[in-house]
Parts: sequence; structure tokens; C-alpha cells
Amino acid sequence: MKLNDIKTPEDLRRLPVGELQPVADELRRYIIDTLSTHPGHLASSLGVVELTVALHYVFNTPYDTLVWDVGHQAYAHKILTGRREQFDTLRTYGGLSGFPKRSESEYDAFGTGHSSTSISATLGMATASRLQGDTHRSHIAVIGDGALTGGEAFEALNNLGASKANVLVILNDNGISIDKAVGGLDQYLTRITASKQYNRLKEEVWRKLDGSTGGRRHSRSLNIFQRITSTAKTLAVGGSNLFESLGIRYFGPVDGHNVSQLVDMLEKMHNLEGPKLLHVITVKGKGLRQAEENPVVYHAPGRYDVATGHQLASAGDKRNLPLKYQEVFGHTIVELAEKNPAIVGITPAMATGCSLNIMMDKMPERTFDVGIAEQHAVTFAAGMAAAGMIPFCNIYSSFAQRAYDQLIHDVALQGLHVVMCLDRAGLVGEDGPTHHGVYDLAALRPVPGLTIAAPMDEHELRHMMFTAQLPGQGPWVIRYPRGLSEHADWHCEMQQIEVGRGRCVRPGGGQAAILTLGTVGNDALRVAEQMDASVFDMRFLKPLDTALLDEIASKGYSRIVTVEDGVRKGGFGEAVVAYMSEQHPSVVSTIRVLAIPDRFISHGSVTQLKHECGIDSEAIMNALKI
Amino acid sequence: MKLNDIKTPEDLRRLPVGELQPVADELRRYIIDTLSTHPGHLASSLGVVELTVALHYVFNTPYDTLVWDVGHQAYAHKILTGRREQFDTLRTYGGLSGFPKRSESEYDAFGTGHSSTSISATLGMATASRLQGDTHRSHIAVIGDGALTGGEAFEALNNLGASKANVLVILNDNGISIDKAVGGLDQYLTRITASKQYNRLKEEVWRKLDGSTGGRRHSRSLNIFQRITSTAKTLAVGGSNLFESLGIRYFGPVDGHNVSQLVDMLEKMHNLEGPKLLHVITVKGKGLRQAEENPVVYHAPGRYDVATGHQLASAGDKRNLPLKYQEVFGHTIVELAEKNPAIVGITPAMATGCSLNIMMDKMPERTFDVGIAEQHAVTFAAGMAAAGMIPFCNIYSSFAQRAYDQLIHDVALQGLHVVMCLDRAGLVGEDGPTHHGVYDLAALRPVPGLTIAAPMDEHELRHMMFTAQLPGQGPWVIRYPRGLSEHADWHCEMQQIEVGRGRCVRPGGGQAAILTLGTVGNDALRVAEQMDASVFDMRFLKPLDTALLDEIASKGYSRIVTVEDGVRKGGFGEAVVAYMSEQHPSVVSTIRVLAIPDRFISHGSVTQLKHECGIDSEAIMNALKI
Repeated sequence: MKLNDIKTPEDLRRLPVGELQPVADELRRYIIDTLSTHPGHLASSLGVVELTVALHYVFNTPYDTLVWDVGHQAYAHKILTGRREQFDTLRTYGGLSGFPKRSESEYDAFGTGHSSTSISATLGMATASRLQGDTHRSHIAVIGDGALTGGEAFEALNNLGASKANVLVILNDNGISIDKAVGGLDQYLTRITASKQYNRLKEEVWRKLDGSTGGRRHSRSLNIFQRITSTAKTLAVGGSNLFESLGIRYFGPVDGHNVSQLVDMLEKMHNLEGPKLLHVITVKGKGLRQAEENPVVYHAPGRYDVATGHQLASAGDKRNLPLKYQEVFGHTIVELAEKNPAIVGITPAMATGCSLNIMMDKMPERTFDVGIAEQHAVTFAAGMAAAGMIPFCNIYSSFAQRAYDQLIHDVALQGLHVVMCLDRAGLVGEDGPTHHGVYDLAALRPVPGLTIAAPMDEHELRHMMFTAQLPGQGPWVIRYPRGLSEHADWHCEMQQIEVGRGRCVRPGGGQAAILTLGTVGNDALRVAEQMDASVFDMRFLKPLDTALLDEIASKGYSRIVTVEDGVRKGGFGEAVVAYMSEQHPSVVSTIRVLAIPDRFISHGSVTQLKHECGIDSEAIMNALKI
Repeated sequence: MKLNDIKTPEDLRRLPVGELQPVADELRRYIIDTLSTHPGHLASSLGVVELTVALHYVFNTPYDTLVWDVGHQAYAHKILTGRREQFDTLRTYGGLSGFPKRSESEYDAFGTGHSSTSISATLGMATASRLQGDTHRSHIAVIGDGALTGGEAFEALNNLGASKANVLVILNDNGISIDKAVGGLDQYLTRITASKQYNRLKEEVWRKLDGSTGGRRHSRSLNIFQRITSTAKTLAVGGSNLFESLGIRYFGPVDGHNVSQLVDMLEKMHNLEGPKLLHVITVKGKGLRQAEENPVVYHAPGRYDVATGHQLASAGDKRNLPLKYQEVFGHTIVELAEKNPAIVGITPAMATGCSLNIMMDKMPERTFDVGIAEQHAVTFAAGMAAAGMIPFCNIYSSFAQRAYDQLIHDVALQGLHVVMCLDRAGLVGEDGPTHHGVYDLAALRPVPGLTIAAPMDEHELRHMMFTAQLPGQGPWVIRYPRGLSEHADWHCEMQQIEVGRGRCVRPGGGQAAILTLGTVGNDALRVAEQMDASVFDMRFLKPLDTALLDEIASKGYSRIVTVEDGVRKGGFGEAVVAYMSEQHPSVVSTIRVLAIPDRFISHGSVTQLKHECGIDSEAIMNALKI
């Protein structure tokens, strides 16, 4: 059967087991082909092709529920569940989401995007089934070894182990999160795998022993030995492993690329009641040499040559384009850390994504990848700061939502000198609603004692990073977007800027002023040229530059437009309105707030999404018209 | 030496070990005496008296850093570290904090209040010491078995295990968090403890075996046995336990009430390099019979008779006082769940605190205490909702900050029918800044698709709970305060209220209107009587009742006052201002926003704090004056 004859998993289930590997091969080829021109999360999806086939083959999806943790590995799942034909619309505006999405398919039992939620959600669904009297339904969570380090996954395992819920956790162990997986857990998983050899050794020894001796005395030792090891197992002192310690039956490790072995194992486990875990060893990037050899780069490689597998230079690479903001961050922190020995770098598993790997290469002792563990990252930073260091903690804006409490409770409340750098702030584009970093400004503005800054360009980013690490500063948040910065010459001299002080970047002759926060200031600047408007880059959401606002209020503009790439409710524009209402109520009627509207924004290009949200140049232009 | 001769731990360290138990006894007595009239967290502190003495005796605090997880068990620590004389000011306005606080003492290495942060912070401090070239400093985190279920603690253990950091984790295992500890981890800890007997058995068997036989054959079996068990240990297949699986050396369990044994053990461990954990078994409430027998009630028992240990009825108990809001929640959810089989109750370890224990007693199958695990609680709820249940998930407002991402990513984005009940919203009083539930409104208002409601009294709470569980609803948040509700007759008939509809609770004849959200409406009502002002209970922060705001704007009030018990920035008042600015700019100059100012609010009585924040009756009165 060809892949395009498989419209649903039902079709797959009609095949004999022996025909599954060709399906898997074709599926893998299809993903490699499509992603070569439609960029997406390649390596993770390649690693679970056989697993995906085996799961849909053995389990009765969508009746049996299947939750993909993080979800960027779910491409094979999408293709097998009726979305093959739309697969080339993946991650495009109006097309398929890059992640499982309940509204997209009944096979997507639970939407994901952020890490470590799958076991919690699956336990919820399994518990619901039990209460609804449905004891036949299986509930499966597929989680990577990286995602397993996220605290929520442990909370869920702890709860799962004490429940009787009919949950199967598939541990997809490839030793890689986005970067190489780190931490005690990962070392442990490696040891478990190595221990297969130990198990073989043990069996062999006992076989030999059994063959070579037969005496009564020996039998007695054997008996005692067995009694002790069995008691030990029961008491779980050395309960066979970490998962069994928590009350979850452990199986494996098994080869994740042997589809018939997977089917066999899953069929055996299918009818086992209660919580259980299958440890599956996979190779991230399986089937594409470059991706296997360099899974970090091929996590999301962009376009590549489908014949050779080599990454293609984008059109832009040939021109002299600016660095990405993340790269400016990466180079700048090294520059600062070379002069200030108190500076350290921390990231929860985004070292490459946020370019902290530059510092990691040069100063491994002072750079910390703590695993997928946003909460821990922030409190760890707070602990460092309490002991006199100045940690720069870099987390993608939307993932930093995971550390909201730690930012309030551990950092801000204690006034500790931690510099939070929120990469991927604003609309991120193709990754969509789970990844847009649009809540940060509104969520953090209410937190006392924070300095919240957003640079308009990479020079400002450098000035802000420089200023943030100066003695006497408290907690800082600097948020900046995904993608390219503004200038070819990023490497300016760093200057101290006054905290809470905005700047006029274009004094206009006209009747209008545009107040911006962050890189949207560049759009405003372009529009302002045409309309002769003034542009104020406010720089800081907190403290807000009220002196500058007083000045602006005094100018008698007939239109004041605020622009931001964060949500409207509680954001920058509303902060300006709140201040003006109190101090200059007469100007309030002239204000127009441009910000992300109060709904979840889908995936698509940043340009498309800015247009949809009414925060692009055209929208600014319209808002300026009186 | 008497307790009042111990001004600092230095004094303690001058004593011979044999004199430590009398100090511990006196310390325990002092806590029992003081707390009988100055209510606080009794049982937790009583459980760690010997441990506290031993830690300060062995370690060189404050040079060696000591972090108390959660921190409500740190009373003995406070008394031993120079705060004995102020101890009777505990938790009062201007007095000692109920939690460790960096600004209060150099012995409080890291402020706590929320659970599961201690290992992260300690690892941060230990890492800083290493970078600073100080290899002699010890870093100790004391964490309870309940707090260990919090995901952040696991994230930290995972990171700690892979580090070489010189961190000692003390696992204070009493089998109780606020309620009885739950989950696979806790069952595991019980098994570890039981396994001491197994270890004894094993030793005994081998001793006997060794004595009874001497033959060569036996020696060979013994040898193989040893080789295998040792290989097993090395490979950590059955690595001796969960903590060692993660790379942390495990010691214990030891008796937490034998001070000389504790000192002995800690001295042995003092100079061991690298991450290590000591498992200490303690009795929560140790030394006060009632507290030992009922640690949940005596977690924070209020006043009690120091001679008998019996709780004292407060003056209020004799009058016919209203129920607490939490009790109204607890009875109402049972009432609703009896009629609607889809309803379930979920709480992360606050069953008694939020009165979900009422449902737990009556419907144990449909009530879930998931452990100290706010993130998991919310995604678990989302999983249930995805499978057609209607979960009411009850979390204290300030602890719900831990689940901010899950509320956005798992609940709101998927539009799932989860009812979040945020107890302890607003100013909580004596627990202070870590516990004030004042960020919820501002943090949640930007999240698309949420219905956010705050009842003015317990009847409204019931109507909101009733409405929230009706078919067709999406995600709801209902936030209500700690403490007593308004009426003696809480048990009204429940009515459906229109979502997003406020109400006029007092049509006034005067020139002023007061707009309130939540129970502050009752203060407003009292003031309004004197000033003949109108009072509007807006009920919903989201959707905001814009039709009612239009009507209010049209009335020509010369003063509009908004009142809330949440933070000003991004809160209810600013939401009203934002709407009026856009639609009715002419009324903006009449608005006065009363809300929590932009700073952390200390501990004290709610009355004192409301006054300090300018949101009490007096402040409303002043704001009404033109």
C-alpha cells in the first residue's frame, strides 16, 4: 500500500505487520521531501516515524487518545491522520499548524507547543474515562527525554504513579532536547540503557552457575540470593528504577526504529492495566545523515537540498544582512562578561536558540544550560544573584510564562540583580499561538520593582544590556524579537542609558506623534517620514518616562498613536492612556492604541500577522489620519 | 545555658553536644507558649526544632547558607538567630515576617513562602561560591516531602545531580504537606524508610551465611553475588534509590528528633564534596500531643490553651458569624456536583485550606488532590475538560502564579471548560507579600477567552459557580478572598447570571458613582450610604460590562471612583479608564482609581494593609470628595 492510500489510521491497521516498514520509509521520505522546501521541525519528526506508525497501528486512535509532548515531532502523525495532502501548507498562514491542535483534527487529542504537559493532560483524560465508565480506552503520552526534565512532567509522574490510571507513557529517548539534553536524569537514562548489558551479563552468569554446579549448598545460596533480590524489588529500595520508584511499571529500552519490535511490545503492553512507561531509544534526525550527525542544527534547518541533505543558503545569506537579535545578545554578553567577572549566563535548554552557546564555548564555567526547566532557571539565577553574581537569564518570552511566579517571588520581591532576557518576544510567525511572546509586557508590568525595557534596534539592545549589568541595578527584563536586527554594523560602543528615559527618534513638523516600544519603532519611523510625524521610542515600559509623556502632552498634537507588539489589555498603550488620563485628561481623546487584539493569533509570517493584528505600517498610517 | 543566653548560633556552638537537647526542649516550649497567643504556623516549626539546632550547631551560619523551603517551619531558626525577643511580633504589622526574609536577617539566606524553590536557590548560591573561589562554604536546603513533589524541586535535583556543586539537601520527611502528602514519591519515601528493616535483614542473612558455611563453593557464589550487586549499584539500574539515580548521594533515613544523632550525621557529611541528600524523619507537631495527632488542623491552629493544647474558640465562634468564602465554595461545589455528573474538584495540596475536603469526603472518586503541583493541576484539569468533564480547580491566587503558562497554553488557548477558583485573592494579611493574591486580575486580564469574575459576597459566589458550570461555557476564573463572607444565610438559591453583566447595587441620588470588583464592594456600599453615591458591582473584569459603563458615562457623575483589591497596573481600574478613554473621553477626568500601589505590600492585618494601600472605606470617602 502506498502512503497516499492511507487516508486514516484505519487503513494502516489493515496491513500486515511486515508491510509497516515500507510505509515508515515512505513517510520519512515524504517528510524529508516536503520539509526541504517547506521549513519546519525536521529532526524530531524523523526520529519518531516508526514509533508513530506503531502507535497508530496498535492503538485505536482517535478513540484511544494520543498526546505528543511539545508536538513538533507530530508530522508523521499529521500525515497518517488525514492531513497528507495539506502537509505542504504546514506552518503557513491559514495552513496546517506546526503542532497538534484540537481544532485541526480529532486525532490531535490535546494541543501542545510548550514542553512537559503531555502526562498531565493524558492523566486528566484517563481519569475522565474512568469516571465516565469507559475502561477500555487507552491513553498515551509521548514525551522526550528533554521534556521529561520539565518539572510539570515530574509532578504528573508523581500523581500518575499513585493513581491506577490506564496511562502509557512513551519515553522517546534521543539524548537531545533542542540542544544536547543535560542533567542527572539524562545521565541516568544513559545508564539504564547501558545496563541492558548488565542484565545480559547477569543472565549469563546465572546460566553458567546453574550449569556448573548442582549441590545442595549452592541451591541454598541461590535461594537466599533470589529471596533477597526479590524482597529488594518489592520494597523498591533498589526498586528497579526511578520510574518504578514512583509506582510506574517500566519497560524497555527498545529500539525505536524497529517497527515490528515496537508493535510487538506495544501489543503486549496494550492490555496491562495501570500506569506504565515504555523507554524507546530513537535517533533524532533518523534517515537523513546530516540530521543524524547534527540534530541541533537540523532541529529546524530551514531549506535544504533534498538530494544531498545540505542546508541551502537563503537568498539573504548572500547579502550583507544584519545579525539576528539573538546573535547580538550572544556576542554582547561575552563582551560584557569579559569585563565584569560577576556576569554569568543561564538558559533552560535554549543555548543555541538564544545564542548563549557563544558564551558557552568561550566561558563554559560561567554558562549554564539547566535543562528544560524555566522555573528552576529563574530561581537558580536568583540564588546566584543573592550571592553577588549578575546572572543574565535568557528564556523565550512565551516559555518565560512558566517562570512567572519565580520572577515575582524569587527575583522581584527580593530586588535581586537578575537580568531576564526574553528572546522571541512579540509575534514569532510560523510557530503560532503557543509561541507568540505577546503576554510578557502586560504580565510583567504589574510586578513591583522590575525595570522592563525593549530595544528598538541592536544598538539599543547593547546599551540596555550594558546598563542592566551596572552596579546598583535591580531586576531587569529586556525583551526583543526573533529574527534579524536593523543595522549591518551591530558592534557599536556600549553606552549607559538612563533607566526609565525614552527618546525622540524623529522630531516631526506635523500634528502627530507616534509612541513606540521596541522594534515596532522602526515601522513607525518609516511611516513618520511620509507623514512628518514625530516618533518617540519610549524604551522602557517600566518605569514609564512620565517626563517625556508630560512633554508630549504639552505639544498639542492632534493625534497620538501608540504601537507595540504585545497584547493591548494591560500593555504599553494602556499604560500611556492610564498616565495621560490622570495627568493630562485633555489629550486622551487624541490617543489611538495599536496593539495585539484580545484573541489568540494563529501562525503565519510575521508580516501577515502584524497586518492581521493592525500593528503594521499600514495600520500606523491609518491611525495617523484624523 | 538558657535560651535567652543564645543570642546567635555562635553561642550555641560553644555548648557540648550533650546540652543541645535541653536547648531544643526550651526552644520548643518557647514556640508553643508564644504561638498559643500569637497565631502562626505551629506544627511545621515544632517538627524541625532538633534539626534546626543541629544545623546551626554543625554549620557555620550565616557563612554557610541555609535555605528553608516554604519557610513556615523557620521559627526555631528565627529564635536562634537573634530574633528571640521580637518573636512575639511575628506576623504582625511592622513585626517579624512569618517567613525567612533577606532584609530581616543575614541568617535568612534566601526568602521563601512559596514551595519548592530551596534547591534551585541553594544550587545558585553554591555555584556562585565556586565561581568566587570559595570552596569551603556549605550550602544547605531544607525541604519537606510535600514540597519535593513540586516540579521546580525536581528540575533543581536534575540539575544538581549533574553538577559537582557542594549542596546538602535535607529532606524533612513528615508525610504531611498542608494536607496529607500524596503521590508516588511519598509512597516511595515510606518504602525507603521501611527498607531499613530490609537492610537489617540482608545483613543478618549474610552474617549467618558467613558463620554457617566456609566452603570454597559457597565463597564463589558469594563472590559472584557481590560482583553482581556491586555492578548493579554502579550501573544504577537498581541504583540504590531515586536520588542516587539522579546523581545525588543519599543518606538516611535518620531520626529527626535525636539531636546528637543528627549532629553526628551532619558532621560526617559536612566535608563530603558534591551533591548529597540526608533523609530525616520528623513528626509534624512534635511535642504537642494535639498537633502530633492532628497536624493538618495544627498546621496553623490559631490560638490555643498552652496548658492543655486545645484550640481556643475565637470570640467570633460564639456569635452567629457567616461562613468563610472557602466553606461556601466547599459546600456549593458539592451541591453542584450532585446535580451535574461532569463536575470534578481538583486542588494542588490545599484541600483543607480551600475546603475542597468537603467534596473529598462526600465524593472521593471525583475529587483530586494532586500534591504541591500547580502546573500539573491546571493541565490535568485541561485534560479532564478535553474529555468532557467540568473541573473546578481551586488554587490560592498567589500560588496560581505557578500555573500561569498552563492557564494560557493548555486552558485558554484551547477554550476548555475549566473553572479556576482562586481562593485567598486580594490582601491575605499576616502571611504577607509572598501570599497576597494581588496580581491575578492584572495577569489574567490579557489572556484571551477567559471569563474573569469576582463575587461581591457569597451569594454572588454561588451564582457565579452555578453559571460557570452551565453547558457552553469556556474557561472561567472566579477569585475571592480569604476570610469570612458577608451574610449569615449563605445558602441562597443559585441563579444563572449573565456573563459580563455588572449590576447597580445602590442607585444613589448624588453626584458620585463607585465602581467595584469583588468584596471591596461592601466597603463601598457602607461609604455610599453616607455620601448618597451610586455603587456598581461590576462582577466581571472580563468581559467588562461596557454597556453599563456607557450608561454610567451618560449619567454625568462628577466623580467616578473605581475600587479593587488587586494591583493598579493593568488591573480593573485601568481597564475602566482604557474603555472610557476610547468611548467617553470626557468622563476620564472624573475617574479616580483606588487599587494596590506599585510596591510589595508587607504583612499585617487586612485592615491595616487596606488602609496602607488606600483602598479602605476612608480612602473611598476621600476619593469621593471633589
